Amino acid sequence: MTLAQLGAEVVRIDPVGGAADYHRWPLTAGGDSIYWAGLNKGKRSMEVDMRSPDGQHLVQRLIAAAGALITNVAGRQWHSYAELRALRPDLIHLEVVGRADGTTGVDYTVNAATGFPLVTGPVDHVGPVNHVMPSWDVSCGLYAALAILAALRRRDATGEGSSIRLPLDDVALATAANLGFLTEAMVNGDQRPRLGNAIYGQYGRDFTSSDGESFMVVALTSRHFRDLTELTGTTDAVAALADALGVDFTDEGRRYEHREVLNELFAQWFGSHSAAEVSAALSESSVLWDRYQSFAEVAKSPRVTANPLFEPLQQDRIGTYLAPGLPMSVDGGHVPAAAAPVLGADNSAVPAEWLGE
Amino acid sequence: MTLAQLGAEVVRIDPVGGAADYHRWPLTAGGDSIYWAGLNKGKRSMEVDMRSPDGQHLVQRLIAAAGALITNVAGRQWHSYAELRALRPDLIHLEVVGRADGTTGVDYTVNAATGFPLVTGPVDHVGPVNHVMPSWDVSCGLYAALAILAALRRRDATGEGSSIRLPLDDVALATAANLGFLTEAMVNGDQRPRLGNAIYGQYGRDFTSSDGESFMVVALTSRHFRDLTELTGTTDAVAALADALGVDFTDEGRRYEHREVLNELFAQWFGSHSAAEVSAALSESSVLWDRYQSFAEVAKSPRVTANPLFEPLQQDRIGTYLAPGLPMSVDGGHVPAAAAPVLGADNSAVPAEWLGE
Repeated sequence: MTLAQLGAEVVRIDPVGGAADYHRWPLTAGGDSIYWAGLNKGKRSMEVDMRSPDGQHLVQRLIAAAGALITNVAGRQWHSYAELRALRPDLIHLEVVGRADGTTGVDYTVNAATGFPLVTGPVDHVGPVNHVMPSWDVSCGLYAALAILAALRRRDATGEGSSIRLPLDDVALATAANLGFLTEAMVNGDQRPRLGNAIYGQYGRDFTSSDGESFMVVALTSRHFRDLTELTGTTDAVAALADALGVDFTDEGRRYEHREVLNELFAQWFGSHSAAEVSAALSESSVLWDRYQSFAEVAKSPRVTANPLFEPLQQDRIGTYLAPGLPMSVDGGHVPAAAAPVLGADNSAVPAEWLGE
Repeated sequence: MTLAQLGAEVVRIDPVGGAADYHRWPLTAGGDSIYWAGLNKGKRSMEVDMRSPDGQHLVQRLIAAAGALITNVAGRQWHSYAELRALRPDLIHLEVVGRADGTTGVDYTVNAATGFPLVTGPVDHVGPVNHVMPSWDVSCGLYAALAILAALRRRDATGEGSSIRLPLDDVALATAANLGFLTEAMVNGDQRPRLGNAIYGQYGRDFTSSDGESFMVVALTSRHFRDLTELTGTTDAVAALADALGVDFTDEGRRYEHREVLNELFAQWFGSHSAAEVSAALSESSVLWDRYQSFAEVAKSPRVTANPLFEPLQQDRIGTYLAPGLPMSVDGGHVPAAAAPVLGADNSAVPAEWLGE
């Protein structure tokens, strides 16, 4: 989808009747998949009986004509790199697989085996806490788009194709290592504990207003922290605390280490002010903050309804709603979202346009 | 970093003494940042006094020579697109900002305002559950790399530069909308509840073995589900249940709706078998699964130690450890990780090489 949003002509080829995700939840009242519509924006669609030799042959010729393939079905001889390269020597061929060793994995199982669920969630919680946000699927999709663009640039420069393999598990492991989660275990021999909603190594956590709204508050710099003590009226108390403990709160590590006592000081102010008062005070400071919101609230907020990223999209069978294009604007403009196709809508058009048949 | 891993020459320019992330946790026993080393692999480094006109002028000329800039400091006139385009008409200029409206935001505050923390965590939990995994930072970095590659391809084809703006908040909003979280609120007028570790719309959740190990188990397809009932010895019970309820468990939505009673049936088997027995039985089935593991366990597992993605990296001041390259292999090989620079190591070399001075 990302490549289609960047301007590529992308054809999704499904088995007849659609793949396993064609009826994936959330569904409309009429039973159509909002999920499928959301992730196939701007693609064309073909349904092909890929168990038949004729179907396989058609798809092989379409891949050769396209010059680039992304598939998450690895190990099928008829669309392997070796087979297809004979038809198109400069083919770019990308297989998304579960794990590097060839075994299966999906976002939820990969995440379980990566370490995050055992440090996510309330401090006193026992057992894992899964992500609702499928981080690895999202990152994997972006890496796939990136790999295709890099391979296109290579082909432009050298005429060479590429055989690319992208394991979902390796996306998760590389990310956990890049961010230091695996590396600190290797270097220091230990790992961080479960911290609840506190940010590791910095001062940041959630607070609740007198009327029960939750706020995420982050003080990354000394200026943020100074503003936070000022607006909560704790400047003198925090200075006295620093003296008593003999610590320098201009060091982010010290703010983190002494977060519990700081939390108590600040929580009193939040707990005695309404959400409106808290929002007003934070808005006038440099402190990084936002109020926790539900998806339903976000969907109705000006961050969506008045954001040029979102434009009304007429989506067959689902209705008209605000849909995003790519999150980056280029030269001041967003490419608006295009609708997802009707399954099989391009069964005739794509072979006609690409193969002249 | 991703661009450096793809072969670009990337110079990170910091203020003298390093930016706010230079001492970010996790730290080694000696106080050096594992975090900074992990996220600056393969870059070169310059320290420049950017408050001085001379420093600003040097950086401007380096950006013009490089032809592409990524910055998360927006709004500074001296490195604005308008100013720099005069020096390099085909410049690619990318600003990462907090929110589209120009206000600030970091991963943790953006996440709070996006909806995920209120549906993540145990079903009976009240209040938000933050991500430990900074999904938006990671996706934003990948979108930035993608935007640069797309702009390079555009410049190759047309000679034109690009002015790109990438709000972290829009990365989160676009993702929440693409995955259906915002769209279901717009279309159906409601949103999914907090589900604990259950997967929405499909059958999947965590189970605990008799010796207290946790497993994530997912049955996406009818075949997975059939195998899960077989290995837990519940095939007859599940068939009787389907009859009694009048539901068809070959539909993933029905498996999701009746997950509680299915959980109870399967949990008995998991609770009466050891982790070793559970692992052995699941390995022989098509069921998608993995055991929950800590970062420390993952760091020592063959998925890291015997994975060609990871190679020993000698990192100045931190030590030698296994570090990942890009998660995709190309033509069977990984580009190995390169060390992060010493801060300011290229203060002389880069101006000499790029500007001849």
